[in-house]
Amino acid sequence: MGVEERRQQLIGVALDLFSRRSPDEFSVDEIASAAGISRPLVYHYFPGKLSLYEAALQCASDDLASRFVEPHEGPLGARLLRVTRRYFDFVDEHGPGFSALMRGGPAVAAGGACSMSTASTANALVDSVRQAAYVQILSHLDVTDPPARLELVVRSWISLAESTALVWLDGRRVPRAELETQLVQDFAALAAVSAAHDEEMGALLRRVVAEEPADGPFGDLIDRLTAPTV
Amino acid sequence: MGVEERRQQLIGVALDLFSRRSPDEFSVDEIASAAGISRPLVYHYFPGKLSLYEAALQCASDDLASRFVEPHEGPLGARLLRVTRRYFDFVDEHGPGFSALMRGGPAVAAGGACSMSTASTANALVDSVRQAAYVQILSHLDVTDPPARLELVVRSWISLAESTALVWLDGRRVPRAELETQLVQDFAALAAVSAAHDEEMGALLRRVVAEEPADGPFGDLIDRLTAPTV
Repeated sequence: MGVEERRQQLIGVALDLFSRRSPDEFSVDEIASAAGISRPLVYHYFPGKLSLYEAALQCASDDLASRFVEPHEGPLGARLLRVTRRYFDFVDEHGPGFSALMRGGPAVAAGGACSMSTASTANALVDSVRQAAYVQILSHLDVTDPPARLELVVRSWISLAESTALVWLDGRRVPRAELETQLVQDFAALAAVSAAHDEEMGALLRRVVAEEPADGPFGDLIDRLTAPTV
Repeated sequence: MGVEERRQQLIGVALDLFSRRSPDEFSVDEIASAAGISRPLVYHYFPGKLSLYEAALQCASDDLASRFVEPHEGPLGARLLRVTRRYFDFVDEHGPGFSALMRGGPAVAAGGACSMSTASTANALVDSVRQAAYVQILSHLDVTDPPARLELVVRSWISLAESTALVWLDGRRVPRAELETQLVQDFAALAAVSAAHDEEMGALLRRVVAEEPADGPFGDLIDRLTAPTV
């Protein structure tokens, strides 16, 4: 194997391990064993577990950000639902690693060494993924210069998606498909609350809703919210 | 001054500094100078900046959790609004420190030393405050054994309150009072979306809404959401 090929193989093995357990729960020996190579050979490609972890995080971040890309075609609710499903696919595939990372960063310490720089790297990657999601959503809303209230709705919805995924991972007690639809409807609900306070948000929401089919997630929510029982 | 009194004074001075700037932006010298004592005397009470930071965080966490306590009297929407206002008071008072803490933990390094244990302490305190908010909200809903969907709504709303506060602190471009009302209405909106998918949540929401006055934040939201323009 070439150098780059071997590095990619190790990153793949590490990502698989980091996805199934918190990174502080296993050793370089285990990574070497899973990759079918010797421990010194792992160190030949990566100075230590932390640098391998950082490389795996970078790979996972790129993967996740790529899932946010969605063609600018058809109703917005359906687009957001497709992206939300791909987000949950990712969360599902990388559950324990995702939880460990999002719950205050990885308590990774290689041989007791300090890993504040790894924590900073991890935070920066998490932020870059959030920013990628934010930019994608604005582009689908055809907005280039978002007013403060729209920024607030979009950024806080992204945080809602994260916390929903984290609570779901803790026991998986609500069906995934229900949460995916619900999250898309949460976006409309948060936008509607904001629109109730601000005419610019109201105009944006009306523009979006006007293009939504009655059987899409947004249309479905409006039916349910305006039903007489609630 | 007695030992405990001097410690409390130092914690107060540190909390004030940590609230106005990120903890890695100033030195023990500055803390000593603000407290009007010598640097060695600071070290007499606290082994270093990190332990003082941890003590200040503990103090701030206790303060914040105490603000969640609200009498079980009157409509829920008004109670939640009062608590949300006290939460924003806290965020307002401790803006930069709150942002630094919530955006991935403090990059505090005293003389280059490792601070993973401080990061863990900080994470544990943040989690304990979230849990205190969660317990308080359930108690106001008169629920002791929350179904999964209610847990999801409450925990994700708490995360929404955090992200709303963080976006607000970044420029303060939306009036605080508007965001406070909006957050309380977001709670109702998220509960309504969940109730649209689940009868148990529907029953809970109807019970809460039935006791709400028309001029409370929940009644106001229902008026606005069912208005024909949206």
